[in-house]
Amino acid sequence: MLDQKLKAYAQSNIYPWHMPGHKRIPLDDGNPYEIDITEIDGFDNLHGAKGILAEAQDRAAQLYGAQKSYYLVNGSTCGLLAAVCASCKRGGRILVARNCHHAVYHAISIWNLEADYLYPGMTDVGIVGDISARTVEKALQESTYDALLITSPTYDGVVSDIAAIARVAHAHGIPLIVDEAHGAHFGVSELFPKSAVTQGADIVIQSMHKTLPSMTQTALLHLCSNLVQPREVERYLNYFETSSPSYVLMAGMERCIRKLIREGPLLYEGFYNRLCAFYDKTAALQHLRVMEPRDLRGLFYRMDPSKILIFTDGYSVSGPQLHQILLREYGLQMEMASVDYVLAMSSIMDTEEAFGRLEKALYAIDAALPAGEDGAFAARKREIGNIYTPVPARMTIGEAEEVSRRAMEDVASEDAVGRISAEFVYLYPPGIPILAPGEEILEKTVKDIENCKVLGLEVQNMTADGRFRVLGR
Amino acid sequence: MLDQKLKAYAQSNIYPWHMPGHKRIPLDDGNPYEIDITEIDGFDNLHGAKGILAEAQDRAAQLYGAQKSYYLVNGSTCGLLAAVCASCKRGGRILVARNCHHAVYHAISIWNLEADYLYPGMTDVGIVGDISARTVEKALQESTYDALLITSPTYDGVVSDIAAIARVAHAHGIPLIVDEAHGAHFGVSELFPKSAVTQGADIVIQSMHKTLPSMTQTALLHLCSNLVQPREVERYLNYFETSSPSYVLMAGMERCIRKLIREGPLLYEGFYNRLCAFYDKTAALQHLRVMEPRDLRGLFYRMDPSKILIFTDGYSVSGPQLHQILLREYGLQMEMASVDYVLAMSSIMDTEEAFGRLEKALYAIDAALPAGEDGAFAARKREIGNIYTPVPARMTIGEAEEVSRRAMEDVASEDAVGRISAEFVYLYPPGIPILAPGEEILEKTVKDIENCKVLGLEVQNMTADGRFRVLGR
Repeated sequence: MLDQKLKAYAQSNIYPWHMPGHKRIPLDDGNPYEIDITEIDGFDNLHGAKGILAEAQDRAAQLYGAQKSYYLVNGSTCGLLAAVCASCKRGGRILVARNCHHAVYHAISIWNLEADYLYPGMTDVGIVGDISARTVEKALQESTYDALLITSPTYDGVVSDIAAIARVAHAHGIPLIVDEAHGAHFGVSELFPKSAVTQGADIVIQSMHKTLPSMTQTALLHLCSNLVQPREVERYLNYFETSSPSYVLMAGMERCIRKLIREGPLLYEGFYNRLCAFYDKTAALQHLRVMEPRDLRGLFYRMDPSKILIFTDGYSVSGPQLHQILLREYGLQMEMASVDYVLAMSSIMDTEEAFGRLEKALYAIDAALPAGEDGAFAARKREIGNIYTPVPARMTIGEAEEVSRRAMEDVASEDAVGRISAEFVYLYPPGIPILAPGEEILEKTVKDIENCKVLGLEVQNMTADGRFRVLGR
Repeated sequence: MLDQKLKAYAQSNIYPWHMPGHKRIPLDDGNPYEIDITEIDGFDNLHGAKGILAEAQDRAAQLYGAQKSYYLVNGSTCGLLAAVCASCKRGGRILVARNCHHAVYHAISIWNLEADYLYPGMTDVGIVGDISARTVEKALQESTYDALLITSPTYDGVVSDIAAIARVAHAHGIPLIVDEAHGAHFGVSELFPKSAVTQGADIVIQSMHKTLPSMTQTALLHLCSNLVQPREVERYLNYFETSSPSYVLMAGMERCIRKLIREGPLLYEGFYNRLCAFYDKTAALQHLRVMEPRDLRGLFYRMDPSKILIFTDGYSVSGPQLHQILLREYGLQMEMASVDYVLAMSSIMDTEEAFGRLEKALYAIDAALPAGEDGAFAARKREIGNIYTPVPARMTIGEAEEVSRRAMEDVASEDAVGRISAEFVYLYPPGIPILAPGEEILEKTVKDIENCKVLGLEVQNMTADGRFRVLGR
């Protein structure tokens, strides 16, 4: 039974180094059913708010410095769908970072857009990098688009130079949408990166639940200019979000925003100090390596220090293996595992004790690891390199999905090269497509997917027996 | 502050004759933050469920007799969007009941469908009626469509003959989608109408929160055949629903389903008996009139007795006035007010005491009402007649929305006739459009809207000063 299993998890000794950012600590002790009502007299209407919900949204706008903010109860998902549909003509063209969340690809499909992709580079430290203003400028000189969308910070915490990118987009007359789902804590304190809201973006979407003490499914859309018509944004939010929003979720969002307005800078100062202490204390690990975000200013525009990346560097364990050791032997549930690192997601709710427990576990694991690199592992990882490599699109995602309704087949890897994918093929997490419908399957793609599977990563949307779903001929 | 206001409402003596169906009585005493997690190891993934969520969904399918059921955390809204997009080609054609929820119109816009409407008739008892199989047959003989969608029960509780309509739709080779948002309690007990799930519909969408003890935003989509590809339904549910579904909402749904499996027939027998007693006891009202659903088998296919309709019949008070008297003087919050009736939404959670309180209030109000009909009121109501009257569509909703981005103006009522609406114009509640984008504004429409406003109903999506938003010329 789901609720019993959830309660057992809550009462276990397992520590959540994962979303949601409230880390299961209640901001309120009420029973949710008591305050779960519908839109009756005096409680306003989220779609067209004029009363108490309008005031709540205004407080969020004030906190982040937005022109207008919208509460979302269907996650960042509905914010991304609405932003894309409001910014682009149906059947238009959009320029997006390839490492954007699959909700963006879904918007591209729904609106039948033609998409061109910006490919982030691979960094020396082994994670996917930022999108540079130069890359954007080059793309905008080559073609015209209705809008530009990038993800910053990434799941790993890499922040792009939004101010410079916004200048480029605006020079070309198009709006910049920033998926800041992983950065709702930005802009609250100067110790953390600035929010795209104040850096020139036109629409910014943040998941509150990911990094803030707010319940799952809660998010914000910030409107920062009039380059995209507010009426259009509101139209599509209304389309993609339930007409019966939960007051439990909305009351939780408001409590969170009020807490940040009241105590935000102080809370984030304490959190930043705990993070710095953790990075200092884990600097002496011998085989494992905690990435030091303060050293990375030369490499990236900026790193979000709240995403703790723990690299195995090929020392006998892979990312997924380290993930399992931390969970099974130390009761520490990570947010995600990549090929050779795990990600611990931290928030203001993580105490010194929690950081201490993670630190001790890492030192214990580290001491038990045999020295020396696993040659086969390292070779495989090098072979993959950057998983986000350009693949040719033979039609739009929307067109491919239409075709797939009539003609689709499943083919083995050896027969897949040259065929056109009928599905999104993802690594999960983070849920970013390696292949989108309508894209041609290359030899490198097939090999990358094989390697990812061998390295223990979950590849989604292939058949149970590992075949590719392709368009019929 | 929202949470304080919600708690004050919970602690007030106001009784909720409105959604959600749990009537604020907890099915569980836990703190929501404690069980609010993300999709970590062992807790499955709603989009592609294989473990504990798959089992939970299977239990729902078993309860209702569906081939497959899907938990929805973005309300019936996302179920309707997914059902329409999965059933229709982009730019295709759909036949829908005019009195469907605005989410259906939104799906029509998103998928840029051409829509034809089935207009329910006005009944002798003063509410909008059902859709007959004959009307459907006539429409399907005249033209071809990708799918048929109707709402049953309506907000007022009118049930259509789904079995007969399904036969007609299938004879013409198209799927029948039933918006059963207001009938999630159907099919649990034989004392209430049968669910469309077992009556031949292909896809059925139910809001759990409306009539069941389940939290707001929770809903189900039931797949009852393979006429629409399950893969397509799943694709679009994935598109229109957050990638971070709330375990608080899902655990609440599961508790509700388990309760219904265990105790459903008994709970509904008690509820039915309380309803019958209430209808018996209120039969002697002099001026107010509680509609007796058991008498109506000749008029409609069937009425849902849990929707309590209290008519003023023009006796000195209008529906909105009765709504206010019940709230202000008796602490009874109704679900909605129409021109000359109010709707009390009841569920298994309403006790004998609750029904007794409503009964006493109605007799007290009834005794104080002066006899005799309000002539002007009755005349105005007669003039409106059936608000859902055919209006000519000059383009699709999607096309009109595209045009409105470039050219839109606001015109006074006297200049609106002959212009093309840029907006949905609704009565709220129930939120069913009188006008959709792309439809020509007729003289009758302008007059109906004027009359509705005078009668105290809220008309949405006109400008603050009561002008129509129309497409530019």
